[in-house]
Amino acid sequence: MTADPVTSLIDAALAEDIGPGDITTDLLIPAVETGVGTIFAKEELVVAGLDVARRVFARLDSRVRFDPARADGDAVAAGTSVAVLRGPLRALLTGERTALNFLQRLSGIATRTRAYVSALGDRRTVLVDTRKTTPGWRYLEKYAVRVGGAKNHRMGLFDGVLIKDNHIAVSGGIQAAVQRARSGASHLLRIEVEVESLPEVDEALAAGADVIMLDNMDLPTIRAAVARIAGRATVEVSGGVTEEGLTALADAGVDLISSGALTHSARSVDLSMRITHDSDP
Amino acid sequence: MTADPVTSLIDAALAEDIGPGDITTDLLIPAVETGVGTIFAKEELVVAGLDVARRVFARLDSRVRFDPARADGDAVAAGTSVAVLRGPLRALLTGERTALNFLQRLSGIATRTRAYVSALGDRRTVLVDTRKTTPGWRYLEKYAVRVGGAKNHRMGLFDGVLIKDNHIAVSGGIQAAVQRARSGASHLLRIEVEVESLPEVDEALAAGADVIMLDNMDLPTIRAAVARIAGRATVEVSGGVTEEGLTALADAGVDLISSGALTHSARSVDLSMRITHDSDP
Amino acid sequence: MTADPVTSLIDAALAEDIGPGDITTDLLIPAVETGVGTIFAKEELVVAGLDVARRVFARLDSRVRFDPARADGDAVAAGTSVAVLRGPLRALLTGERTALNFLQRLSGIATRTRAYVSALGDRRTVLVDTRKTTPGWRYLEKYAVRVGGAKNHRMGLFDGVLIKDNHIAVSGGIQAAVQRARSGASHLLRIEVEVESLPEVDEALAAGADVIMLDNMDLPTIRAAVARIAGRATVEVSGGVTEEGLTALADAGVDLISSGALTHSARSVDLSMRITHDSDP
Amino acid sequence: MTADPVTSLIDAALAEDIGPGDITTDLLIPAVETGVGTIFAKEELVVAGLDVARRVFARLDSRVRFDPARADGDAVAAGTSVAVLRGPLRALLTGERTALNFLQRLSGIATRTRAYVSALGDRRTVLVDTRKTTPGWRYLEKYAVRVGGAKNHRMGLFDGVLIKDNHIAVSGGIQAAVQRARSGASHLLRIEVEVESLPEVDEALAAGADVIMLDNMDLPTIRAAVARIAGRATVEVSGGVTEEGLTALADAGVDLISSGALTHSARSVDLSMRITHDSDP
Amino acid sequence: MTADPVTSLIDAALAEDIGPGDITTDLLIPAVETGVGTIFAKEELVVAGLDVARRVFARLDSRVRFDPARADGDAVAAGTSVAVLRGPLRALLTGERTALNFLQRLSGIATRTRAYVSALGDRRTVLVDTRKTTPGWRYLEKYAVRVGGAKNHRMGLFDGVLIKDNHIAVSGGIQAAVQRARSGASHLLRIEVEVESLPEVDEALAAGADVIMLDNMDLPTIRAAVARIAGRATVEVSGGVTEEGLTALADAGVDLISSGALTHSARSVDLSMRITHDSDP
Amino acid sequence: MTADPVTSLIDAALAEDIGPGDITTDLLIPAVETGVGTIFAKEELVVAGLDVARRVFARLDSRVRFDPARADGDAVAAGTSVAVLRGPLRALLTGERTALNFLQRLSGIATRTRAYVSALGDRRTVLVDTRKTTPGWRYLEKYAVRVGGAKNHRMGLFDGVLIKDNHIAVSGGIQAAVQRARSGASHLLRIEVEVESLPEVDEALAAGADVIMLDNMDLPTIRAAVARIAGRATVEVSGGVTEEGLTALADAGVDLISSGALTHSARSVDLSMRITHDSDP
Repeated sequence: MTADPVTSLIDAALAEDIGPGDITTDLLIPAVETGVGTIFAKEELVVAGLDVARRVFARLDSRVRFDPARADGDAVAAGTSVAVLRGPLRALLTGERTALNFLQRLSGIATRTRAYVSALGDRRTVLVDTRKTTPGWRYLEKYAVRVGGAKNHRMGLFDGVLIKDNHIAVSGGIQAAVQRARSGASHLLRIEVEVESLPEVDEALAAGADVIMLDNMDLPTIRAAVARIAGRATVEVSGGVTEEGLTALADAGVDLISSGALTHSARSVDLSMRITHDSDP
Repeated sequence: MTADPVTSLIDAALAEDIGPGDITTDLLIPAVETGVGTIFAKEELVVAGLDVARRVFARLDSRVRFDPARADGDAVAAGTSVAVLRGPLRALLTGERTALNFLQRLSGIATRTRAYVSALGDRRTVLVDTRKTTPGWRYLEKYAVRVGGAKNHRMGLFDGVLIKDNHIAVSGGIQAAVQRARSGASHLLRIEVEVESLPEVDEALAAGADVIMLDNMDLPTIRAAVARIAGRATVEVSGGVTEEGLTALADAGVDLISSGALTHSARSVDLSMRITHDSDP
Repeated sequence: MTADPVTSLIDAALAEDIGPGDITTDLLIPAVETGVGTIFAKEELVVAGLDVARRVFARLDSRVRFDPARADGDAVAAGTSVAVLRGPLRALLTGERTALNFLQRLSGIATRTRAYVSALGDRRTVLVDTRKTTPGWRYLEKYAVRVGGAKNHRMGLFDGVLIKDNHIAVSGGIQAAVQRARSGASHLLRIEVEVESLPEVDEALAAGADVIMLDNMDLPTIRAAVARIAGRATVEVSGGVTEEGLTALADAGVDLISSGALTHSARSVDLSMRITHDSDP
Repeated sequence: MTADPVTSLIDAALAEDIGPGDITTDLLIPAVETGVGTIFAKEELVVAGLDVARRVFARLDSRVRFDPARADGDAVAAGTSVAVLRGPLRALLTGERTALNFLQRLSGIATRTRAYVSALGDRRTVLVDTRKTTPGWRYLEKYAVRVGGAKNHRMGLFDGVLIKDNHIAVSGGIQAAVQRARSGASHLLRIEVEVESLPEVDEALAAGADVIMLDNMDLPTIRAAVARIAGRATVEVSGGVTEEGLTALADAGVDLISSGALTHSARSVDLSMRITHDSDP
Repeated sequence: MTADPVTSLIDAALAEDIGPGDITTDLLIPAVETGVGTIFAKEELVVAGLDVARRVFARLDSRVRFDPARADGDAVAAGTSVAVLRGPLRALLTGERTALNFLQRLSGIATRTRAYVSALGDRRTVLVDTRKTTPGWRYLEKYAVRVGGAKNHRMGLFDGVLIKDNHIAVSGGIQAAVQRARSGASHLLRIEVEVESLPEVDEALAAGADVIMLDNMDLPTIRAAVARIAGRATVEVSGGVTEEGLTALADAGVDLISSGALTHSARSVDLSMRITHDSDP
Repeated sequence: MTADPVTSLIDAALAEDIGPGDITTDLLIPAVETGVGTIFAKEELVVAGLDVARRVFARLDSRVRFDPARADGDAVAAGTSVAVLRGPLRALLTGERTALNFLQRLSGIATRTRAYVSALGDRRTVLVDTRKTTPGWRYLEKYAVRVGGAKNHRMGLFDGVLIKDNHIAVSGGIQAAVQRARSGASHLLRIEVEVESLPEVDEALAAGADVIMLDNMDLPTIRAAVARIAGRATVEVSGGVTEEGLTALADAGVDLISSGALTHSARSVDLSMRITHDSDP
């Protein structure tokens, strides 16, 4: 993995928060003082982002030692300590909010994803994310989805062919679009088509789509589509997916369920940091 | 305003989504074709981020013309068109998701903020945000909060002195901390202290704090604190703020209510984009 | 397409050549003087990179007008003018070498690729490139390959699964590798395996590889492999590909021939620029 | 030396190849596994770029240990191991192609340069490169030329005055150009003029050029020019230089021979990397 | 503190000085040779910038060991050694000028500031700087001012409200301006107004300004203003401040004196570096 | 010229001053209001940097129109208007200080340089600058020196060979150093040696130095050195150069006088900006 986008995001986050300096900390705490910080969960959650938190502090001061007490993917109870930090007090205080801001969002996504995955139980249907991620956070949020137990859809527009409604509308229909994509795309890529009705399912099948995405269909239509496709293409459903509706979708026989809410609407979970002076008991 | 962090975020967002190219669009749509795109609300919401959306497309292709149909801050009903775009179809298709990802998050924050502000009615208490923003998004999310009708707390660690619990714990108490801050900080800055009990309120007052933040107190304690402070300092409450609890807090006489949930847990609202070919009716 | 890596490369190229200033030009030519430049081929070649050349001059001075006389992909004879530039003489002189350096390399690749593609005639076998590109030039060189008439293999390590000899050596064999890749990779990706012998072909088939790359095999073995695969997987050959050997490989029935020499060893073709003063006849 | 342009090029190379991740390697190889890689020559060549290769892997993972078995400038036979690497298997696999792409190009230039230099034997004529380098690679390619045994001409437009044909055409002739350059240029720079005929040689001499470049002249004209100059200026020949023609040029008495082909048309030489698991024998 | 702007400035400084290489040093000194460098004062001065000097060399070669012999803020006599460096000779020679350029400017500012502060003796009036700093050097120059013993005014336009003459001229007068600033600015900021006459002092007081800056007033007017303000606002004087005039201003009763000359017109002080070979006695 | 380092410096200057926003201006001035700004000299000075000032405002808002009333190099009296700006009031107010900070420093250097050059009258001795420039400002300060009428020494370590005392000390003496430099340096570069005594002058001559720098010598020694050199090398004097001492140095027969004080200790000159509302008379 290349860490550059994440490093850039960490740097941007520190820059926007600290700017030319953390006035309060710099005035109150002598540079030589050291201390201990403990990051702990304030509610039940699935941890994600510990390494990002570590890098936030490392960026501020390479002397900060960051010891994870739990690992990404662990489900922990309220009150659980997830990491202990030791080092210059200034770095602990200055990095606290940024590190927590990363952790609370990524753990929020992992927590929600885990709930969805648990709802599916051992069904063979796979839960995947979408491109509805927070701009600048694609890599991290897709990571949190994996930590939560789901799989990723394509990372972006560059590593998968997905012919959507707007593409079809402006390129002369499903048949033409699939054909053009097939002849131009790399031999390592499969072709997915988004459809909105059963006739479009038939068109996509006839065009030779490898994957068919059923967009915003009701359950009976989804069941009909699955029957019609009959294994000749992979079937994905998308749109209006709720935690409660997951099992019905899976039981309708689809291969993949994609949910944008995993990333764009997971609420942050609550974590906090307690800092004490080294000379304290 | 310097646009640099926002420009960087837009560039990062496009880079992570497009990478070396939008395979689907580039294969299906000839470079010369043009079209029209309409961005519309799929639910009731307060619009925020139209200019960011405009810049997303401008970054892709300077020929895209972006005409806002509504302005940031407008409350619109489901189905309302908020902007119309004209230009190369490739740019419209390739920028669609990134632009919507910005809009849905910023409008989500503005929508939630507006609801909170409305709840306060014409009370004199001011609603403010916190530093619990999405890393990389500080500037934009604070903007969305203003669009929603609330005010901003400090932008970061550099433009305000706020002595928090961890600072007090490691710097020898409220009295010492306020004194050190006062003698070192610029004469243009006021000093705020976070307190967790009534005795701490007294300490902060004695130390000469300009602003006192009551952290996670229950209503009776807040009322007692306000009475004790009696106008000698500005009073802010923070922690556990809900939409329902706002009026009670305001009626307790506090000057400011700060809420992290405005930014870290507002769910995205739903917007979509419909694209048609120029030759279409 | 996002232009960023190309813009960065252009900027790096100008910076390394111009540094703090083009001493000769700045001393000899007053800033106000304008002129005309003509870029022309000094040998028979296929043009590629005209837009990069345009951007080189645009970066130096937005007043330079760049009129292509030919288009990328055109095969031209020695002496043919491919572009005419008008604008400040300083920009024409300062940008000349960098623009030509881009053109001569990209046209070199397109010219060589065109020769290979012509050799294949109307056979159905597809010529593709590899990842053996000049570091920093991946996007541009793959573009030049397309201009020459061939197709691209994956852009990089992120948009295709290709299990190579070193992967197999350290991950427990073909069967295990394919299985792990299949279960983890996005549903939009196919799985390719590099094999070096007929038994490995069998293993790859048994493992369910979508594409099988025959690496450095002689013709009889390739023919045997194609027979054994019998359409159950796409077949790519790689290694030791020469212009003369192309038709034999194609006639052996393979689907794809990949050649690293298209990008790493195409010699530059010769282009030059003639500059005259505006007041000249 | 400032490493920045090289660091940028390495980063760009890794970014364009890896993007958001090396799918194959990340799926097949657990992060904790380590191994050994050996880079070896697959043909006779002069090694150049070992430190760049080292930095490619260092950028991916600081735990990779890179032990050169040979040094830049060594001429090695096919099969010779030039470096041994130890570290995380993922970094070895992910960095392999980029490192080899650097090595094969730089060693190709060094190999070709060495052949040219050898052809000159112990003649006093000096072989130099030109500005016809791969954009973005100026520093590295000029380094490879030195490794091969030749010298560098100026690095760019900023560290030497070279009045070329186009300059002369638009600045009123050789006499005026040299005079203007002399009075404006730093006292640490000498003035070189490119000439295309014997009368121009005379003009350049009369104007007081320090160095005269004979551009694309045939041997008899070169000999006449050398005779006419008679030591009053340094003599460089340029254009149409081939390995076979080098000795005749040198024997004509010129001081410097410059060749663009050293950098723009040296073919890549073949190097490979073999990777084994630590637990392998 | 985030070091990024300083790191960028160091990088820019090294890049502009070294470009593609320190020709002299690289030709004369083998890469393996090491030596000792001593930085010493050539006149009486207050040291500032030692850590920047250290970082200049660290950036060139991480093996350079930099031992400060004095600390920032120390007043030293001519001839005093302020730092000793050990490491590769190339890095010592190549970094010398850039490191000294930083030191001579920052120490110049600290030296001048110290003189001003000493002139004020133990008066309670505080000396502060302004925004008249060298572009790109805001952070460093404000640091040098603190090293010299003065305090900083706001860092920039983002961490303080200062309503200046041009603001007043275009926003409808002092009263309107203060009111608008008060209602929009963060509750952590005080409001300062620049005034040029006694009637404007009255207006500012009436408008409720927290701080009043007396701009370019003569001493009697300043005394009258102080009397009129009578402690109801903090009083700053600015404009035409000289070392000789400081005590009179202070004795006039102002709280703050700001001086742009501290940063924009402090002359560089003289420091030098002596380098010897490790094998020398 | 490549503008990148200057663009970077402008961006850094705006970023450090504006950060996340110009609070005062944004609160007081509606975005739609426009106005006129006039930049004028507050003392007699030579103007330098008008284009940098223009670019500062262009960076903030492309709608600002900047009309220079004078040109770089003009000597103007106090009160002279040097540029008039029209555009959004916010951009005028926010960019004012940064633009003036650039102008006051560059004009200060040009003003001092002009005084030195005038002192030399029509003597043939050339005044040059040094590398003692403000880090980050090399290009701009060398430009201001040219505006003032002097010439530039080398730009940096990359475009000239200058063997200084520390080089000599660690490389085995003048003879060895010159020889090594001569054989390795580009044929376009001359070799300069810094000497501190007459015997060293002899050594430098014997070694074949092209230029000899007499460092910190008194006048009689300089005269002796010039006599001894007798035209066999260019002669530069450096060290302790004052405006008063210039003519004596020139009359001693040296070719070049270099002065670091031109750039490192020129005081800023005073310029100001007056802004009025468009609706004002």
